[in-house]
Amino acid sequence: MAVYTDVPDEELRAFIAEYAIGEVVSCKGIAEGVENSNYLLRTENGTYILTLYEKRVAPADLPFFLALMEHLAKQGIPCPTPIHGRDGGALRKLCGRPAAIISFLDGMWPRRIHPYHCAGLGGALAQLHHAGAGFPSNRANDLSLTGWERLYGACAVRADEIKAGLAEELRTELAELRRLWPHELPRGIIHADLFPDNVFFRNESVSGLIDFYFACTDFFAYDLAICLNAWCFESDGSFNVTKAKLLLAKYRTVRPLSNAEIEALPLLARGSAIRFLLTRLYDRLHQAPGAFVRPKDPLEYLQKLRFHRGVTSPTAYGFDS
Amino acid sequence: MAVYTDVPDEELRAFIAEYAIGEVVSCKGIAEGVENSNYLLRTENGTYILTLYEKRVAPADLPFFLALMEHLAKQGIPCPTPIHGRDGGALRKLCGRPAAIISFLDGMWPRRIHPYHCAGLGGALAQLHHAGAGFPSNRANDLSLTGWERLYGACAVRADEIKAGLAEELRTELAELRRLWPHELPRGIIHADLFPDNVFFRNESVSGLIDFYFACTDFFAYDLAICLNAWCFESDGSFNVTKAKLLLAKYRTVRPLSNAEIEALPLLARGSAIRFLLTRLYDRLHQAPGAFVRPKDPLEYLQKLRFHRGVTSPTAYGFDS
Repeated sequence: MAVYTDVPDEELRAFIAEYAIGEVVSCKGIAEGVENSNYLLRTENGTYILTLYEKRVAPADLPFFLALMEHLAKQGIPCPTPIHGRDGGALRKLCGRPAAIISFLDGMWPRRIHPYHCAGLGGALAQLHHAGAGFPSNRANDLSLTGWERLYGACAVRADEIKAGLAEELRTELAELRRLWPHELPRGIIHADLFPDNVFFRNESVSGLIDFYFACTDFFAYDLAICLNAWCFESDGSFNVTKAKLLLAKYRTVRPLSNAEIEALPLLARGSAIRFLLTRLYDRLHQAPGAFVRPKDPLEYLQKLRFHRGVTSPTAYGFDS
Repeated sequence: MAVYTDVPDEELRAFIAEYAIGEVVSCKGIAEGVENSNYLLRTENGTYILTLYEKRVAPADLPFFLALMEHLAKQGIPCPTPIHGRDGGALRKLCGRPAAIISFLDGMWPRRIHPYHCAGLGGALAQLHHAGAGFPSNRANDLSLTGWERLYGACAVRADEIKAGLAEELRTELAELRRLWPHELPRGIIHADLFPDNVFFRNESVSGLIDFYFACTDFFAYDLAICLNAWCFESDGSFNVTKAKLLLAKYRTVRPLSNAEIEALPLLARGSAIRFLLTRLYDRLHQAPGAFVRPKDPLEYLQKLRFHRGVTSPTAYGFDS
């Protein structure tokens, strides 16, 4: 639940006047997302999302994110499009923070994941990977190996507060990932955070992909590995191979996977698991007292990490042997 | 910020199918309100508010609140109207909680109060008091004298944790209010919680009054006293008599105040101050660890209480002597 910045009406009216979208009719904070302040904005012309970017997003990255959304939307990806102001700009300031208005997308994110959701996700992810091809900019993934090691360094001395032996297990894992991490897989623009709350459905079809504020340039198969972790485990920690199979099969109907990508998947899934384990661990250990946002459980991702470490063949994900 | 109950999409679809408002297009939790879970619901037919009533609202009172909103809306008050389902009912269950769909109101609540807001509020409040006249039901105000004494009893032993001497000051004040509280003032339906976040404006006009879940039968002038406290103090604790004067003057153009009401105002304002002081104190002392909602400051209302205790004549509120 997130609205960190409350926008006074006068400031809002002045801000909206920079756009040709009519006057404000209403503006309500949305209790979703944990990184930024989001408002559902209704004007005389329509419905939009107003986002104020909070501390976790680097302002220098915002032009990349906004240009990427615009590029992807033009390629037919159902993602938010930044609205340009009268001066042509899509990024300005509101209440001292970078702020943008983006288009509103219909649909709801699934609270309970059914297999058909994973199929829809697979197709949408592959289309996203294709659509990023012509985008001229790059952004390094700052939450890959080096970023994980940095997070580990900031958490190691206190990690065992969360679970005995955790620091040592992470240290060993990171060393192994550093040694084995692939270099040569197909790469391009990835979303890098495609959790269920970032994918909207209407009926059984994907109607929206949102929250591109971790998007970067990395292996396409790493994005798939993130989705395997975020969509294919049940709440009891068990891996649902039916969901994984549908996710991967539908992805491959749009963008074929090379053998190297398939072989790398268990390792990429370990990397993806440690990425979310470490950011959650960091948030848990560095949580401000009285913070609004309940930090997510890092140990959910330790369980996933161990699952992938036990995988001896990609058939575990539902690939035919 | 409040969304206590997350509604799975299947449950929502089944719930909406009970209404003739088309299919769900989107549904987003709203980060406003602290009592209930509110969603901004868009269907094929329009935009609505979906409310799930949480523990603080007594389910037995809900038919009163919903019927009252419907009555007031029919009288032209810009308040939410409950939407009736295909079975005629406006109240049903969702995720184990009482739930209703109400109409969406345009406008924004003022973050910074300007004098014109107080004028608009005064007129709207008087219209609300008139419009309640024909409503056939009553609801006792459970947050008047007896309710305050009950809250005091639940807080007294720990009140001095918040401020030294607070328990004794409240005890003396409650005894005096019990002794002096009026019995014979004009009464009827009051809102009883008309804070700025419950009043929407478009441009300089009131466009909506919301959140009738404290509405009850009590003195009209007590509702005015609540508004004096909620709208006419600056954040430094100073009383803005210009705002009070506009609030009262505009109210009186719609519904004249008797001399008895005017004379009672300082006492009613003390009662209103202790009411919010005590509920905030209770929330502060009984806050669950890790709760989402940051409890409001009870001492803000101690300052207001002391101001009204020092008032020797209603001229302090801007009445002509």
